[in-house]
Amino acid sequence: MEKYIYSLEMKVRDYECDIQGVVNNANYQHYMEHARHEFLESLGVSFGKLHDEGIDLMVSKITIEYKRPLHGSDRFAVRINMQRKGAKLVILQDIYNLADGNLATKGEVEVICLRNGRLTRGEIFEELLGGYIADKEVY
Amino acid sequence: MEKYIYSLEMKVRDYECDIQGVVNNANYQHYMEHARHEFLESLGVSFGKLHDEGIDLMVSKITIEYKRPLHGSDRFAVRINMQRKGAKLVILQDIYNLADGNLATKGEVEVICLRNGRLTRGEIFEELLGGYIADKEVY
Amino acid sequence: MEKYIYSLEMKVRDYECDIQGVVNNANYQHYMEHARHEFLESLGVSFGKLHDEGIDLMVSKITIEYKRPLHGSDRFAVRINMQRKGAKLVILQDIYNLADGNLATKGEVEVICLRNGRLTRGEIFEELLGGYIADKEVY
Amino acid sequence: MEKYIYSLEMKVRDYECDIQGVVNNANYQHYMEHARHEFLESLGVSFGKLHDEGIDLMVSKITIEYKRPLHGSDRFAVRINMQRKGAKLVILQDIYNLADGNLATKGEVEVICLRNGRLTRGEIFEELLGGYIADKEVY
Repeated sequence: MEKYIYSLEMKVRDYECDIQGVVNNANYQHYMEHARHEFLESLGVSFGKLHDEGIDLMVSKITIEYKRPLHGSDRFAVRINMQRKGAKLVILQDIYNLADGNLATKGEVEVICLRNGRLTRGEIFEELLGGYIADKEVY
Repeated sequence: MEKYIYSLEMKVRDYECDIQGVVNNANYQHYMEHARHEFLESLGVSFGKLHDEGIDLMVSKITIEYKRPLHGSDRFAVRINMQRKGAKLVILQDIYNLADGNLATKGEVEVICLRNGRLTRGEIFEELLGGYIADKEVY
Repeated sequence: MEKYIYSLEMKVRDYECDIQGVVNNANYQHYMEHARHEFLESLGVSFGKLHDEGIDLMVSKITIEYKRPLHGSDRFAVRINMQRKGAKLVILQDIYNLADGNLATKGEVEVICLRNGRLTRGEIFEELLGGYIADKEVY
Repeated sequence: MEKYIYSLEMKVRDYECDIQGVVNNANYQHYMEHARHEFLESLGVSFGKLHDEGIDLMVSKITIEYKRPLHGSDRFAVRINMQRKGAKLVILQDIYNLADGNLATKGEVEVICLRNGRLTRGEIFEELLGGYIADKEVY
């Protein structure tokens, strides 16, 4: 099994499901955002403090592959890995159904860093997250 | 039929429905909030500008009676009336299904006004909305 | 301090907050719904199974008083009590900020029971939840 | 300017914005879903009727590039084109800010078709949407 640097367990809430009884597609993006924020919070990274220093992290692209839908009350885990890709940080976020271990969605989130409103080369990612970023670059 | 001072037409989006195929209860509150903001925008009232002057309008209480659920793709109207109740502004917000004219929900939203963080007697409501507030007070 | 029959701890997710940095008003209703469903699930009550027997529980009215807003990352608990009110079950749901113990919102949810689409006198509430319903009726 | 086969105009609702005052990333996916459903509804395609015939259309992958954020009250248009890619239908969905004509997000949604739970070669896409699918295949 693939290894991850972070995992957050959650449970589907009924209001997140649509008429088919499965989690609405957009809500996986909510799960992924929440897991990223929890991960950063666990490292002591604060968006607010960064912003006060003129630094803003922004999602520039997101890709989600939908494998097997989650249903109401399902327990699941959002698992995270990270890689550099030039000026971007690529956050790999896979969601697993904890009942059967199956992959529910496979996601990739590209994040860029602005300093005083201008795109940086992403040096900040190493400063903030150095130990967690996989060695191999993605091209 | 009851008369209203404002009406906003909208259409149910599928992602707002839950597994029963009806609009999730919390989403009616979203519809009501959006209609209030559209109404204020139509009057040129800006939350941001008020906030810069130290004035904040806040919802202190909400009551919603659920009569007949809306379904996916239903067209509906959120209709508004307003009354004073001491320091509070009471915004009456009824949602009608436009297909059959039936009442879907009946809502009442109490709003208070803070100036520099302290509760006011609500004089600002008359200033901003005077002509739209019904004569009779609610007790 | 008031006593409750059930308490569910949760944490605010950033996407649940609006431009003021506080939880959007409608999301408290989501928290309350999730807590009710978790409570029923903990008792083994299944909406699906009830529905197959012709029994539907529906929210007929909701009241929420907003006391002190929750902010991003706040931990909170949704606490529940229940009372009968004629044909209705009244679910009292208070949300507490766990950082300071303050009441964030005070909610009251009225639930009715339909059998084969017709309003019942609510006998089912005693069957399902008897031991959890407070002795005194609400009038 | 690029040509599209369908365009749906909408307006940002304040509750769709997050603490930065911009539309939360996941909500663009909601806008895209709603536009797809409106487009299909305009053609008389019904998910419910298809489902009763054993046919289910499912999103298998979504990609969104975030260009320039939308803010509260912004008017925007979700514009659609479609292409075949083997068994998949690729729906291109771009969102434009109507105030300045700038591209807000660029999206690509891959849809597959199941018949009685088994993946089809996507012949149904030609049946339902033939006239709207661009001639050139995507590889």
